[in-house]
Amino acid sequence: MKIAKTISAARAFVRDARRPIVLVPTMGALHQGHSALIRRARRIAGEKGSVVVSIFVNPAQFGPKEDFSSYPRPIEADESVCREAGADLVFRPEAAAMYAADASAFVDESRLSMGLCGASRPGHFRGVCTVVAKLFLIVQPDAAVFGAKDWQQLAIIRRMVRDLDFPVKIIVHPTVREADGLAISSRNAYLTPDERAAAPGLYAALRGAATRNTPAAIVREAERRIACIPGARLDYVRLVDSAALEPVRRLDHGTTLAAAIFLGRTRLIDNLQIPARS
Amino acid sequence: MKIAKTISAARAFVRDARRPIVLVPTMGALHQGHSALIRRARRIAGEKGSVVVSIFVNPAQFGPKEDFSSYPRPIEADESVCREAGADLVFRPEAAAMYAADASAFVDESRLSMGLCGASRPGHFRGVCTVVAKLFLIVQPDAAVFGAKDWQQLAIIRRMVRDLDFPVKIIVHPTVREADGLAISSRNAYLTPDERAAAPGLYAALRGAATRNTPAAIVREAERRIACIPGARLDYVRLVDSAALEPVRRLDHGTTLAAAIFLGRTRLIDNLQIPARS
Repeated sequence: MKIAKTISAARAFVRDARRPIVLVPTMGALHQGHSALIRRARRIAGEKGSVVVSIFVNPAQFGPKEDFSSYPRPIEADESVCREAGADLVFRPEAAAMYAADASAFVDESRLSMGLCGASRPGHFRGVCTVVAKLFLIVQPDAAVFGAKDWQQLAIIRRMVRDLDFPVKIIVHPTVREADGLAISSRNAYLTPDERAAAPGLYAALRGAATRNTPAAIVREAERRIACIPGARLDYVRLVDSAALEPVRRLDHGTTLAAAIFLGRTRLIDNLQIPARS
Repeated sequence: MKIAKTISAARAFVRDARRPIVLVPTMGALHQGHSALIRRARRIAGEKGSVVVSIFVNPAQFGPKEDFSSYPRPIEADESVCREAGADLVFRPEAAAMYAADASAFVDESRLSMGLCGASRPGHFRGVCTVVAKLFLIVQPDAAVFGAKDWQQLAIIRRMVRDLDFPVKIIVHPTVREADGLAISSRNAYLTPDERAAAPGLYAALRGAATRNTPAAIVREAERRIACIPGARLDYVRLVDSAALEPVRRLDHGTTLAAAIFLGRTRLIDNLQIPARS
């Protein structure tokens, strides 16, 4: 496994790499969820193709009061995860290599990014779109693998790929969960023992609510169940169209039940795909 | 010379095309200026490489009161110009093929696009950045050739390429002029005979002003000379840093004297590169 710390080193790898090139973009602090994404990328690339994992804590997607500086950066452990999961290249640039001091061009999205997490994280998805566009243009992947946990991010990246004609296939991998149902997340490390004990209540609330028969009843039931999680504060629960992320009035096509809560100072997100009902 | 009217047809050409691929993005209504860009692209591509000309009147870069619907679209004449200048492919998609009805992802620039033409054309450079990004992602060129006449557009595209890591070399070709100095432009066709007779005064004003010795004196002299052009209304004159497009206080590095005027209802732009003075 090779390591590239600069854009030019990554480009040099890509120039000689065998295709398909499959990219797994991450912010590091890699866990079993990422590991599953990298193994998935390895299967897609096959023995002959190339798997690239990017590790970059992207300052542009953190708000001024968010956890950019405290975000974990266990780089040696991360490289081990990548190696064991079958990566061929880890691209881990410094922020100064990714953004010029006077950087002023960016990619953004104006509809899907407005609601859900976008409502409480202004500028977040501009940061996400811009860095993913840059990674796609540096690594030139044939496919890229994203986890389903941040469904809004996934939907926005699919939209960006469609609208800007990126020649990249977006692969979605199911959320990897702890035995008790909690979606694995780098930010779970922030939870106190009490918060950790309460955290599986989020996914349980979504699953419990999804059995209801109307969109309004599903959202109401999720809110009711989240209100019963000790120490939880609701950010949002929404039932949306899985692609356009717009509120739905019917359950006759696939929908996404998405929620965000605060447990103490830690923000957790999760979602559930609800199949179409006749 | 081949014609591609869809994105997938363009991608099929690109898949089999020999590199380097050199792109000349245009809105059609091709004149001697475009012809010079295509011949330049041909020289860069060499006999073995591929020259792609895109012809697309991009709705996203026209304001609601601008000339999108009346913009000339002489497609047969345009294809002849491309053929004679040595193009291998003309990519001329319909607007519906380029923009989904619910398109919401875009590329924009937040500094260089604020002044000069951007001040009176809100949204224009977002439209330009987005369509050029799409063309780069569809055609995957090694290089792209732009005219120097729209210097602000050129500087913004260079900035976009730098900030988003497009693997595309931007080539600038000098403005092609009529014998009387008027920069050749598709919009010159809108001028009445009297306006056409007055129009060379814009470039003459820039050249006359550039002999002055301070930034303030250069701008003042250009304004004075433009005020003497019959029927002309000044939009702006600015002396700016050629890359960052910020106002300059000194002439010790290369600067750009840029101006826009209205002659009747037609908006004309031009610029002059002023070499560094000690």
